[in-house]
Amino acid sequence: MTAPNAKTRLLNAALTQVRRAGYDATTVDELCQLAGVTKGAFFHHFRSKEDLAVAAAAYWSEVTGALFASAPYHDYEDPLDQFIAYIDFRAALLDGRSLAEATCLLGTMVQETYESSPDIRDACFAGIAGHAGTIATIIAAAKSRHAPQASWTADSLALHTQAVIQGAFILAKAGNDMELARSSILHLRRYVELLFHHAKED
Amino acid sequence: MTAPNAKTRLLNAALTQVRRAGYDATTVDELCQLAGVTKGAFFHHFRSKEDLAVAAAAYWSEVTGALFASAPYHDYEDPLDQFIAYIDFRAALLDGRSLAEATCLLGTMVQETYESSPDIRDACFAGIAGHAGTIATIIAAAKSRHAPQASWTADSLALHTQAVIQGAFILAKAGNDMELARSSILHLRRYVELLFHHAKED
Repeated sequence: MTAPNAKTRLLNAALTQVRRAGYDATTVDELCQLAGVTKGAFFHHFRSKEDLAVAAAAYWSEVTGALFASAPYHDYEDPLDQFIAYIDFRAALLDGRSLAEATCLLGTMVQETYESSPDIRDACFAGIAGHAGTIATIIAAAKSRHAPQASWTADSLALHTQAVIQGAFILAKAGNDMELARSSILHLRRYVELLFHHAKED
Repeated sequence: MTAPNAKTRLLNAALTQVRRAGYDATTVDELCQLAGVTKGAFFHHFRSKEDLAVAAAAYWSEVTGALFASAPYHDYEDPLDQFIAYIDFRAALLDGRSLAEATCLLGTMVQETYESSPDIRDACFAGIAGHAGTIATIIAAAKSRHAPQASWTADSLALHTQAVIQGAFILAKAGNDMELARSSILHLRRYVELLFHHAKED
């Protein structure tokens, strides 16, 4: 295994530092120091901090996409079981991690940049919506099997799962307590169970 | 009606500018310019930008607290109707407002400052938890009347409502589309209806 190159080290440094301190508080100098690269190397790979942030959003989706692709929730036969297991997997990802390690680069960056940088905003949305799309596929299969008449859409429910998780992170950060995030994710799980339970009754 | 004093103008400027650009990107110079006050006046009222942020969090709770206290959801007799009407009121607050105007100072500030400033973080949590407490009182009354045996707690559900709303704001900012926030708040409404509907069945 070769050591990551300068570009990858800078992207990893951005994932760490932006989740810890936010986008605006993170400086190019800090990122270079964390990555162990020169400022010349930074500007060889990225035109600006904004350019790095856009690349970091795509890199985040690549890294977390691989994590989700190999996660155990895919192993269930019933897509509803897959969806519930996905929610449990999101809760399990909080275990043993600090807030900076457990929370989302995209939700953090977009909070600061949605007005100042359409490029970063769009990169964040591409990542969130792209991941939600993989969950929407599972939800659509679960809906088709268990709740074909329900009025909600798989796309909307998939985006809602991401909203709950992003909001759960904010509560956990504010209260400095990961339990607040776990608790909201458990409410999300209960919502999904009730939605499908209710559909079966109709 | 007298014009607001310099301190209040600075607090209002912070509410506007931090929700637009984030805490770290907001400078004391910008706030002074927006408020029409000198830098000397700023430092007469606040020791630092951090000191202003802590005061702005308290001011935010004061302003929004007055809004919620006079909101129509209190007019319902049944506390479950009050709770549902509160959720509808949160959705109605999105109408005709820009993202910067509709979203939450506290959720924005804490995202950047939870590690760097325990004072700002705690001020944000005090505001979020304080507001959640007013909703928990309504939920507790609704639970007592309609779902006394339910396993969830009013406090936990009240905090979850805030998590959903905070996460809904993030989705709306990322997608540059207020509908994403409305959609998540509608899922929250459906969750509450199902929770109480389910409790009545048991």
